Amino acid sequence: MVDKWLVGVDLGGTTTKIAFLNWYGEIVHKWEIPTDVSDKGKHIIVHIAKSIDTMLAQLGHSKEMLLGIGLGAPGPVDVSRGIIFGAVNLGWENEYPLKDMLELETGLPVIAENDANCAALGEMWKGAGDGAKELVCVTLGTGVGGGIISNGHIVHGVNGAAGEIGHITVIPQGGALCNCGKTGCLETVASATGLVRMTKELLAKEDTPSSLRQKSLDKLTAKDVFDAAKVGDELAEKAVDQLAFYLGLALANLGNSLNPEYIVIGGGVSKAGNMLLEAIKSYFDQFAFPTVRTSTKLALATLGNDAGVIGAAWLAKHLLQR
Amino acid sequence: MVDKWLVGVDLGGTTTKIAFLNWYGEIVHKWEIPTDVSDKGKHIIVHIAKSIDTMLAQLGHSKEMLLGIGLGAPGPVDVSRGIIFGAVNLGWENEYPLKDMLELETGLPVIAENDANCAALGEMWKGAGDGAKELVCVTLGTGVGGGIISNGHIVHGVNGAAGEIGHITVIPQGGALCNCGKTGCLETVASATGLVRMTKELLAKEDTPSSLRQKSLDKLTAKDVFDAAKVGDELAEKAVDQLAFYLGLALANLGNSLNPEYIVIGGGVSKAGNMLLEAIKSYFDQFAFPTVRTSTKLALATLGNDAGVIGAAWLAKHLLQR
Repeated sequence: MVDKWLVGVDLGGTTTKIAFLNWYGEIVHKWEIPTDVSDKGKHIIVHIAKSIDTMLAQLGHSKEMLLGIGLGAPGPVDVSRGIIFGAVNLGWENEYPLKDMLELETGLPVIAENDANCAALGEMWKGAGDGAKELVCVTLGTGVGGGIISNGHIVHGVNGAAGEIGHITVIPQGGALCNCGKTGCLETVASATGLVRMTKELLAKEDTPSSLRQKSLDKLTAKDVFDAAKVGDELAEKAVDQLAFYLGLALANLGNSLNPEYIVIGGGVSKAGNMLLEAIKSYFDQFAFPTVRTSTKLALATLGNDAGVIGAAWLAKHLLQR
Repeated sequence: MVDKWLVGVDLGGTTTKIAFLNWYGEIVHKWEIPTDVSDKGKHIIVHIAKSIDTMLAQLGHSKEMLLGIGLGAPGPVDVSRGIIFGAVNLGWENEYPLKDMLELETGLPVIAENDANCAALGEMWKGAGDGAKELVCVTLGTGVGGGIISNGHIVHGVNGAAGEIGHITVIPQGGALCNCGKTGCLETVASATGLVRMTKELLAKEDTPSSLRQKSLDKLTAKDVFDAAKVGDELAEKAVDQLAFYLGLALANLGNSLNPEYIVIGGGVSKAGNMLLEAIKSYFDQFAFPTVRTSTKLALATLGNDAGVIGAAWLAKHLLQR
């Protein structure tokens, strides 16, 4: 078994990342294919299966080389049944039997999981989590996602909605409207979109001079704001400080509840790096229970785009070990 | 094995509750002894062991009747080593080897756990949790405690500080000072002490007539405030509404993170009953992610003071099953 490969698949709305990994989680080969969401997503799974077969042949191996497939997908997944719900981005409006379809096309055992949970497992296995069995992973991108691991296992909750860290309410009164229908969610202030919105609000409300005033507001990005903050732009620093305040509060409260060994921060926004991490840490320390402050560590994700395929492969390994 | 008994012990600062339970968690016999904290707590464990032996003899059974002991204690416990840290209330200032001492005195296998975690396990096994393997239990008393269960197991975190629900920050700026050294903790607004403090602040700040103004402020209790709120006292209603707001917010955020099947509310303050539960629910619904709102249920604890001994006995059963 240890000479064979695991397959990790990270299914996204635009591209699908696929990798062959050995039993110890080292990537042997990885590649990407476009995700074809036409015809209500009916080609997606066939394309993944074909791509795995083609790559295997190119590498000179037969199907016996593969042990099983872990698949991360963008939406709530019922892991025991292998079904994803309402992944509208992929053209799957209702339930879609991910596991059954991919097993049918590949003849291999498949385990399907939510993509943010896969990223958390990846960071646990091979990334910033360093093998920690108590870990929270938060992904700061266009939105804010998360995965929570306790006793080495993903916390799914009763209806698969655990880990919705982006929808922790951090502004109980007067917060901005979130896509979920609530107001004041962490996602409205700690995502790339949220940072841009807060910056625009500050630009409109305050007279502080700022290099950002020379930009077209329509095209302002989170990276622009971080870049300006890094060179001391006061208004940009204020916007980043707001993000860090709310994120530090939410992560401290996750720490007060779960006392994980690591809280790993990933996603595009986390590329702002140590400047952001230090700002979050100072608020985390302010809001964390003393024992949590000294035992729960904040860390930047280290696997980047590979976290998803590595975590998916971990699931395949774990499934086969049982 | 199923004909024998489990022992549940709930060690408190004033009294210690002890019970014999059958394999199915039914209480066969229960009693209390005073907790003797003199001489730096050196008599506590001996008294528990003697009391178990005496009661067993009175009931006409020998030691063979007992399978093992679960022990809940008020403080952070390292379950794998069976050690409690800094239980100053009991006279144990540093580490105390709970498990080893009780095994030495009784000759039975012992498992030790934090008392709030035992209460959560009790409510899971025989109480409002109804067997749910995903459960959060919050205890509203003089302080606010909690226990979190995921996949049927207590979440301990890396340093045993998981479940510190009372120290979730709900007022990030300008909140009252908490015993833990932080400000704005849930405990400062959702405990009996917190409710009384908020009521006194309202009495000082507002002119609203209130029956509570006839009371001596020194002797005002949480029960007084709930009783006044129940008969429509506007100021008391406002104080209870503040408690419900912050508790609804914190519990919704736990729901957004963990999506448990039940969030069970226990402790003295929960005796305010359905009036309080409904008020908390309305804020919970406001702050919970849509899927969480429809799948995570709030419920009042049903076991009262028995939750601790029942949960402790569950641990003994679980230990013996492995």
